[in-house]
Amino acid sequence: MRRVSLRLVTALAACCLASFAAAQGAGGALPSWRDGDAKSRIVEFVKAVTDAKGKDYVDSRDRIAVFDNDGTLWAEQPMYFQFLFMLDQVKAAAPRHPEWKDNAAFQALAAQDKAALAKLGQKPVLELLGQANSGMTVAEYDQAIRKWLGSAKHPKFQRPYTELTYLPMQELLAYLRANGFKTFIVSGGSAEFMRPWAEKAYGIPPEQIVGSQQEVKFEMKDGKPVLTRGASFAFIDDGPGKPVGIYRNIGKRPIAAFGNSDGDLQMLQVTTAGEGRRLALIVHHDDAVREFAYDRESHIGKLDQALDAAPASHWIVVSMKNDWKKVFAFEK
Amino acid sequence: MRRVSLRLVTALAACCLASFAAAQGAGGALPSWRDGDAKSRIVEFVKAVTDAKGKDYVDSRDRIAVFDNDGTLWAEQPMYFQFLFMLDQVKAAAPRHPEWKDNAAFQALAAQDKAALAKLGQKPVLELLGQANSGMTVAEYDQAIRKWLGSAKHPKFQRPYTELTYLPMQELLAYLRANGFKTFIVSGGSAEFMRPWAEKAYGIPPEQIVGSQQEVKFEMKDGKPVLTRGASFAFIDDGPGKPVGIYRNIGKRPIAAFGNSDGDLQMLQVTTAGEGRRLALIVHHDDAVREFAYDRESHIGKLDQALDAAPASHWIVVSMKNDWKKVFAFEK
Repeated sequence: MRRVSLRLVTALAACCLASFAAAQGAGGALPSWRDGDAKSRIVEFVKAVTDAKGKDYVDSRDRIAVFDNDGTLWAEQPMYFQFLFMLDQVKAAAPRHPEWKDNAAFQALAAQDKAALAKLGQKPVLELLGQANSGMTVAEYDQAIRKWLGSAKHPKFQRPYTELTYLPMQELLAYLRANGFKTFIVSGGSAEFMRPWAEKAYGIPPEQIVGSQQEVKFEMKDGKPVLTRGASFAFIDDGPGKPVGIYRNIGKRPIAAFGNSDGDLQMLQVTTAGEGRRLALIVHHDDAVREFAYDRESHIGKLDQALDAAPASHWIVVSMKNDWKKVFAFEK
Repeated sequence: MRRVSLRLVTALAACCLASFAAAQGAGGALPSWRDGDAKSRIVEFVKAVTDAKGKDYVDSRDRIAVFDNDGTLWAEQPMYFQFLFMLDQVKAAAPRHPEWKDNAAFQALAAQDKAALAKLGQKPVLELLGQANSGMTVAEYDQAIRKWLGSAKHPKFQRPYTELTYLPMQELLAYLRANGFKTFIVSGGSAEFMRPWAEKAYGIPPEQIVGSQQEVKFEMKDGKPVLTRGASFAFIDDGPGKPVGIYRNIGKRPIAAFGNSDGDLQMLQVTTAGEGRRLALIVHHDDAVREFAYDRESHIGKLDQALDAAPASHWIVVSMKNDWKKVFAFEK
């Protein structure tokens, strides 16, 4: 023991508060995860890539972790939440678009016909949304999203959609960041639908959200520079599009990837095809009581090929029912 | 004074080393900048937005700074360095493309005819590059870039291109980051051309580089997932494209923007049109001795409209000749 200034210690301590909080979080990591194979494989992976003396060590700059959003970080049933927002937007715009009466995507969306929507695929539905908000500035669109999220409620849980994030996944995000990872969302939905709430919900800032992209255009409007929305989509960040979105927006191969459906298959493949130790994980929706149970036959979040590929690829399949003590933070 | 454990102090100090180094850097900030209007306006801006008690305070999450690359962070004469790389790539691919003989962009590039290239614009030249590397995997392309950068030398300075970064701008990047800013490159060039060296040169990681985008496609090749390059460009991140690139990849309006040409005009406009205190800066190339002197009449990095807009928009115009003590780190 030697005598040193308390003031110095206080200054040092204040400066480090954030890091210490993170380190403590890692100590009692993943409290909503039951002990078992999934949890222990996650923890082993994180230990391996952060052990500076180990053979699997990865520099913190390369600790890139990518997360699907719908069905991986928050719920996606009875329909992608963005589709429900779109439905309201499309309904509001319908009087201005009499031609939609003969549009198959409009009919399916208006009837909430999941089978028809699944058959059509994402593209015509996204095109419809594109037409509905075409001409809006990005600021106006952002306001429409915030307004909807502030009032709409989930039909089963009767809560705002932003409360339907998975507590164990929030813990996982925080645990990875506490261990030097940079966490990204790579979603089939559009980035602007996630940006208003993802930082608060997940600790992921807007610049770390990759998603599908509607065309936007720079214009001068009343002497002010604005971005207005076009009608078509420039990029669909789903399935084989996800590795492309990762290449474009991140520019590094992730060392960890988290998904729940066949839309994440290629993202998981690219992640685990890299050299060195890798982690891939699939959230399996098998809890009809606390959430929903669906996989191979589902029209939303279909999990079939990726489930078949998991064992040979050494991807962790998480049972929501067995591996998670709690699904949502609001549970008793 | 109270007695506390030296070990605690040591641990705290080690943990804070990075932050302290940054804070020290801010103390003697911008050593290669001469005292004057440009330097003092930069420092005043940074003080204003980081003063938690001031009216101009900006939360660190919103301290987004965007930098053009060519002509702003490194040199761009006698021709964009990526074009010189492309020229070598196109030359190598020419025997496989006899149809290029009648292509105006190929002729201009092969003759290094800057006037013709300027008249054609970026698009046909980028298309030619697209064809030249089409079918390569992104890993192969990355290797080609690294190989070229490792051997090619600038015709005037006879040094590797990666040494032609501007020392005062490197200091500015570090100074902003030391004050809680997140720094991004938003370039008309393609991200993959900057990613191999920008982290070392500027401290900007691959995921914070926004650029023009060539098509890439996910494929399974010999049972392995790869991304291969298509022939066309999906997005040109220049002029009115820059605010679009910023919206897509960052999702926040920057509070500070740095450019040098009319290709940065809309990025500066969007940045300074935001509410609250903003900073926009133009690097004016007026130093024919240490670098190059060009502006309104130049075919590369033309600065005309943005120079006219600067005074009324309160954008700082930096004279490389007068405001910078040194241009390059290698200068005596």
